[in-house]
Amino acid sequence: MKIATLGPEGTFSHEAAMKYGRNASIIFTDTIRDVFEAVSKNKADCGIAPIENSIAGTVGQTLDCLVEFGLKIKAEEILPISHNLVGFGNINGIKRLYSHPQAYEQCELFIKKYLPKAETIQTSSNGKSAEIISKSKNKNEASIIPKIAVGIYGLKVLKKDVQDNRFNVTRFFVIAKNDSKKTGYDRTSIALYPQVDRPGLLYEMLGEFAKRKINLTKIESRPSKGKLGDYIFYIDFEGHKSEKHIGEALNQLEKSAFVTVLGSYRRKY
Amino acid sequence: MKIATLGPEGTFSHEAAMKYGRNASIIFTDTIRDVFEAVSKNKADCGIAPIENSIAGTVGQTLDCLVEFGLKIKAEEILPISHNLVGFGNINGIKRLYSHPQAYEQCELFIKKYLPKAETIQTSSNGKSAEIISKSKNKNEASIIPKIAVGIYGLKVLKKDVQDNRFNVTRFFVIAKNDSKKTGYDRTSIALYPQVDRPGLLYEMLGEFAKRKINLTKIESRPSKGKLGDYIFYIDFEGHKSEKHIGEALNQLEKSAFVTVLGSYRRKY
Repeated sequence: MKIATLGPEGTFSHEAAMKYGRNASIIFTDTIRDVFEAVSKNKADCGIAPIENSIAGTVGQTLDCLVEFGLKIKAEEILPISHNLVGFGNINGIKRLYSHPQAYEQCELFIKKYLPKAETIQTSSNGKSAEIISKSKNKNEASIIPKIAVGIYGLKVLKKDVQDNRFNVTRFFVIAKNDSKKTGYDRTSIALYPQVDRPGLLYEMLGEFAKRKINLTKIESRPSKGKLGDYIFYIDFEGHKSEKHIGEALNQLEKSAFVTVLGSYRRKY
Repeated sequence: MKIATLGPEGTFSHEAAMKYGRNASIIFTDTIRDVFEAVSKNKADCGIAPIENSIAGTVGQTLDCLVEFGLKIKAEEILPISHNLVGFGNINGIKRLYSHPQAYEQCELFIKKYLPKAETIQTSSNGKSAEIISKSKNKNEASIIPKIAVGIYGLKVLKKDVQDNRFNVTRFFVIAKNDSKKTGYDRTSIALYPQVDRPGLLYEMLGEFAKRKINLTKIESRPSKGKLGDYIFYIDFEGHKSEKHIGEALNQLEKSAFVTVLGSYRRKY
């Protein structure tokens, strides 16, 4: 199996791809859009793209690409985000720290407490932070990197799990030409674009779920075509699109909105 | 007036701060959290933090910090995101392109069409992309940068508005110790944390808005404390917290959820 995912080597996307397809060959791309293109043009059997992080929030580009490319969500993966301080000296001697801005944000309280005097240099990816420190070998330097990068670059961990919030997880979508069959423990993701906007419309639409006791697990409004105030709703709920009560809800929704089923897939939480 | 915002000089946050406080002195910080800390510790009168981009989605850290620091939304600013290709040669001769990963994503179709053979080097911020090209002066190099950075670094624009989606806008919150008085054209942002979770609960809560004809302008669920499946709802709606029908809706909501009013402020769209 070939899986396209965001590179370079040593990123959390890489780790998610390894978790999903243990013996798969990985194709690294520069952007989320490239992940979708690889799947769309049959260069990969599936793609892995981040959809939400519990600290940083939803990754809008993944939602946009799902709609634009017409691909489906085949599965979800949940990855605990573990950041690690690596280097060649010890924690007290660190004068320069390499870190991706998002990694820095997620470890900010740790850094301010334990490395208050270290100069921080931002890098363009977690993989890059790993590469820089692996070449430097300077005892006064350190990087913050994912667990997978520790092994790939053969680095020494000075302190593991340095993220501030221990419930830091990222959810990934596995993208393919088709979604998955019913397993009995499924989730479905849809996009709703109301044909008209008026107060109470969202309330009425959610009523179609409530009256059928369908549990919503995520809801988000995003500006459609980037125009603030004109929204697409992205909704995740429990169940498979092939189930009767879910089919009925979707039929009702189609009376007041354009409905796109992004995929039904086995739940991981 | 002193405004804290995300640095370095030449970022979109810098542009938003200039738009809000024309003659203000700007304090640049490394992270969104630092913006909140500066306001909290009275080092700045207010802070500017991005809350959502029409392409990239919601900035979760700003929501989290709002709740954590107990500060208020005093105003919102809407900034059209205009990316510009700058350099010293001409478009056909560009062999190396410096770009922040987010800027790259937002101009990806342009780059693939007009600079298909250019090597792309990721930078840690849009301000950095500007700084690098201003020092390089190499005719074969170019950067993608915000309009404000063009002026600051005195650069030559090879092509303006190179973003793929012309409706690319970012919404910023102005953060302060207090929110704003009623103007008659207001928006209110709240966080709702349900005391119990059950199917239909969100539907019932939205009913409190629908029955009072309060128009919701944004809704988003985010994992609370980073635990996927346990959600806080962030809702924006039209009106000021001091209005009677809004006060009534908030009182009703408090029967089934912990309600935090993040602020009432004048609407900009």
